[in-house]
Amino acid sequence: MIFLICQRNLWNLSVFQMSMMVQTGYGFTFVLPMFSLELSAISFIVEYNYISLKRIAYFYSSKRQPHQFTILVRGIPAPTGSSFSQTVENFFTEYHPSTYLSHTVVRRTSKIQSLINDAEKLYRKLGNLKARNSQQRFMRDGFLGLFGQKVDIVDHYEKKLEDIEDNVRLERSSLAAEEVPAAFVSFKSRFGTAIALHIQQGIDPTEWVTERAPEPKDVYWPFFSASFMKRGIFKIAVVVAYIALTILFLIPVVVVQGLTHLDQLETWLPFLKGLLSLTFVSDLVTGYLPSLILQLFLSVVPPIMILFSSMQGYISHSQIQKSACTKLLWFTVWNIFFANVLSGSALYLVNVFLEPKKIPSVLAEAVPAQASFFIAYVVTSGWTSLSSELFRLFPLLCSFMKRLFVGKDNDDDFEVPQMPYHSEIPRVLFFEILGVTYFFLAPLILPFLLVYYCLGYIIYRNQFLNVYASKFETGGKFWPIVHNSTIFSLVLMHIIAIGIFGLKKLPLASSLSIPLPVLTLIFNEYCRKRFRPIFKAYPTECLIKKDREDQNDPTMTEFLEKLATAYQDPALMPVQNSRSADGRSSPLLCAVEV
Amino acid sequence: MIFLICQRNLWNLSVFQMSMMVQTGYGFTFVLPMFSLELSAISFIVEYNYISLKRIAYFYSSKRQPHQFTILVRGIPAPTGSSFSQTVENFFTEYHPSTYLSHTVVRRTSKIQSLINDAEKLYRKLGNLKARNSQQRFMRDGFLGLFGQKVDIVDHYEKKLEDIEDNVRLERSSLAAEEVPAAFVSFKSRFGTAIALHIQQGIDPTEWVTERAPEPKDVYWPFFSASFMKRGIFKIAVVVAYIALTILFLIPVVVVQGLTHLDQLETWLPFLKGLLSLTFVSDLVTGYLPSLILQLFLSVVPPIMILFSSMQGYISHSQIQKSACTKLLWFTVWNIFFANVLSGSALYLVNVFLEPKKIPSVLAEAVPAQASFFIAYVVTSGWTSLSSELFRLFPLLCSFMKRLFVGKDNDDDFEVPQMPYHSEIPRVLFFEILGVTYFFLAPLILPFLLVYYCLGYIIYRNQFLNVYASKFETGGKFWPIVHNSTIFSLVLMHIIAIGIFGLKKLPLASSLSIPLPVLTLIFNEYCRKRFRPIFKAYPTECLIKKDREDQNDPTMTEFLEKLATAYQDPALMPVQNSRSADGRSSPLLCAVEV
Repeated sequence: MIFLICQRNLWNLSVFQMSMMVQTGYGFTFVLPMFSLELSAISFIVEYNYISLKRIAYFYSSKRQPHQFTILVRGIPAPTGSSFSQTVENFFTEYHPSTYLSHTVVRRTSKIQSLINDAEKLYRKLGNLKARNSQQRFMRDGFLGLFGQKVDIVDHYEKKLEDIEDNVRLERSSLAAEEVPAAFVSFKSRFGTAIALHIQQGIDPTEWVTERAPEPKDVYWPFFSASFMKRGIFKIAVVVAYIALTILFLIPVVVVQGLTHLDQLETWLPFLKGLLSLTFVSDLVTGYLPSLILQLFLSVVPPIMILFSSMQGYISHSQIQKSACTKLLWFTVWNIFFANVLSGSALYLVNVFLEPKKIPSVLAEAVPAQASFFIAYVVTSGWTSLSSELFRLFPLLCSFMKRLFVGKDNDDDFEVPQMPYHSEIPRVLFFEILGVTYFFLAPLILPFLLVYYCLGYIIYRNQFLNVYASKFETGGKFWPIVHNSTIFSLVLMHIIAIGIFGLKKLPLASSLSIPLPVLTLIFNEYCRKRFRPIFKAYPTECLIKKDREDQNDPTMTEFLEKLATAYQDPALMPVQNSRSADGRSSPLLCAVEV
Repeated sequence: MIFLICQRNLWNLSVFQMSMMVQTGYGFTFVLPMFSLELSAISFIVEYNYISLKRIAYFYSSKRQPHQFTILVRGIPAPTGSSFSQTVENFFTEYHPSTYLSHTVVRRTSKIQSLINDAEKLYRKLGNLKARNSQQRFMRDGFLGLFGQKVDIVDHYEKKLEDIEDNVRLERSSLAAEEVPAAFVSFKSRFGTAIALHIQQGIDPTEWVTERAPEPKDVYWPFFSASFMKRGIFKIAVVVAYIALTILFLIPVVVVQGLTHLDQLETWLPFLKGLLSLTFVSDLVTGYLPSLILQLFLSVVPPIMILFSSMQGYISHSQIQKSACTKLLWFTVWNIFFANVLSGSALYLVNVFLEPKKIPSVLAEAVPAQASFFIAYVVTSGWTSLSSELFRLFPLLCSFMKRLFVGKDNDDDFEVPQMPYHSEIPRVLFFEILGVTYFFLAPLILPFLLVYYCLGYIIYRNQFLNVYASKFETGGKFWPIVHNSTIFSLVLMHIIAIGIFGLKKLPLASSLSIPLPVLTLIFNEYCRKRFRPIFKAYPTECLIKKDREDQNDPTMTEFLEKLATAYQDPALMPVQNSRSADGRSSPLLCAVEV
């Protein structure tokens, strides 16, 4: 499903670029933005419609899955006398007697999880030790392993392992006290699930808060271990950290910016004068080096964003990725586009945006000046990222280094990689923003982007089909991000156009362009109303049709029986040889059976 | 129900003012806004909680009413072959087989309605004519009634009346073609209604749009007669007209403003110099006249806002009032507060708000200067409006004039007035905004406001209990407006405080105050999450409890039978003596039986 979306996205963008190339031929009049607006509006509706139909089709063709029948209920009111489990049971049998099936109260399992991880490591070590020859099995238990008695390490580890397993058993028995006021509640039909999901349950809206359940293997379990206070504090901390990172990141950007202005660099570092006078060197420094440095710094950001998002309190890996994707997109726009264009310190940037009247003229002056940098950026960042994506050089190097230093123990532990949506989508979208804003200032950028998108289409299609294994179905949920960023880029383009017409003393064109951003935003509002609900929930029509299909299916009862245990915390699953307990490292092998 | 809310509102405000008076004693430090923030936060939560509990209690104690079992479905897809009615029937029997009861497709009835209104007028005239003596019954049918045959006017009118009634019958028979793609759909239980209401029905979110149905007598029928295009154009026209009115209204405001600066007036109109040198006259002109003029102009605005809101496409009178209330509130804030404070032309006002950095300092300079005007405003506008409310002078005058010129025909047509929420609530709230922003600049305003609120509490309580008849139950739906305006006034107060601390060169106090508006907005966000959902819909818990009560009630079947005809267009109801058809003029007499 998802590769189709990305593919359409890329196609759409290429077509968009093409249409822009055609439009640039019309000359520099205000008809141009108007025309492009209409064209893009039609193409947006067609695209959005296509994706939303795909999403419905995906739902119709999807197999029965536990998350279609389950909601996550949070804020269960503190029970008086009985347990949370009893409270949930009572509430749902009272208010949803015909549809309620079962529930699983979530427990705080971070302790057990860490114990199981320890056991896992030990077990692996043991396996390796047993595989080696017997000479290495003994070691002295004294100072630095040099003195004292000879000890069989295998025995030593096995004893440790037993200790840990005892601990796990102990922790599990005392787990009843560690109940979290949250539960996965399953229903007998999809429509019944939707009823409980969409209608406020308790009188107090902060109690019995319902939420769509993620796929069982997609649940981010550590979320539940954090206390309410901790989550609240983390949320604020993440906002502060995100802002701090965004501001601090300006430092490398300013350095990069300095490199594109060679004369500045020469005055700072006079001893470089001789070197820089060589055309080859100066070309390299101004053309290629800045974006390479930026690229290096940027590659650190996606993992940080994932970390931020996981601290923010999302209940599933897919939500974390989506949130990280949005975060990274705006980070990129701010730090690559605005910081480079406005070439200033953080304070100057903030100042510009505090005086909205000046924005168009400031942008109109600054944006065209950076055209050559961004054309180079498309090549260095876009093309190279595509080729490195194809050859997967970076993972190869990582794995090589790991083997070199850590040893060859983990041969059997090969993981099928999953698509890093959170880092790829913002990159693709950022190029689109570049394309839209620069197409009438520096049309030279378009062929480069066109090559990028054509190559990208082929390469990502290949990667999706042959390389990556998706850990969760996105169901087209990333599309609204694509749409929003496109609308943003259009509005930005209009604002720059207004500024440029103003600078060129074309007041008529300038004032005729003013309605354009307004119209774009109204159009966006229409799209939100028309398409957005489909991306949030499935309508009654679909749900009931799907439910009717199931009614006559004999395997349904079996499925419902299994549903009761689908949302079991991996830490609480029976540990067979301490191996399959670690659900995260081998998603393909220990998928929950449904 | 509603008067309790208004009463609490007024109490809350008085307490708020009192607490402010206490606080002003603490001196002019930054502890003060902090303290007031905390205090107000607690009082807000208590208040909001109180009102929302009231709302739930109101629901529990309410009788079975048709609107609890009915939704309005709009955007019914165009049927192929069959009628809209058949489409609705098919859709809901397919997807809500267990809860669906019946439906009423809405028809375009503006023609019939106007015919019935004509008939109504004629009937009344006839009644009057018959009551007079027989001399006046004849008139000549020639030029100016002077020549020609003598004609019995009663016969003449009766013939006309018959013609109209024939027309009505004719129109009704051809009504099937005038179906609107909207229908009132009734369900067997409240919970079933909520299910259809909250879950998106069709795949296309613009089809099968569901909406809570208003009370039958609250439905604004002309809404359905307007075509989709017309509604869309009207919506945009209303926005434009609202902005135009807001800007044009600055003209009287500027005139008023000029009156408070006597010296300016003297330079404009030198012949007034002698007159203005009298202390009494100048006191009158500067102190009382400006707010009186403002008051006169302001009294025109509420009906205009109602007109705007009814053009905007709301389906019920209560929604129109609520929307007009919001419109009028911001109109008042903009035109009375900002226009007076910033004392400038529209362009200057807009300019100020385009440079957000300067807002605090501009406000800090301008707000204290207008303190005396606003104190006078409280007395002239607030106190006088209260006393005129008590004596209902204006309606008395109107009715007197009407009798004088129109004649005494309509004696029997006395209407119980309904509470004009849309004009009263914004006034009360505006005084609150004044109180909050001025309490530390000109504490003298507080005793005046306190008197206003104490009087207001007594007077409005009396009016609610003894004078007004409510046409619809608000169910506390106006409360969020009160809350929002209070939050707005707090943020405004903080911004002014920041500006003033800046002017007085207290950078520490100024920078310590900066987090205050942010904290207030976060607090507002919390309140939205915690309380807002209760004001939008009733939770499952309440709905099912209410439904269970009904299950054993023998009168339920009777109620459900009547439900099928509850949402009949008044234009289509059987016309008994052409009199009771006009449902609007005598709400107490022809309420739909349920």
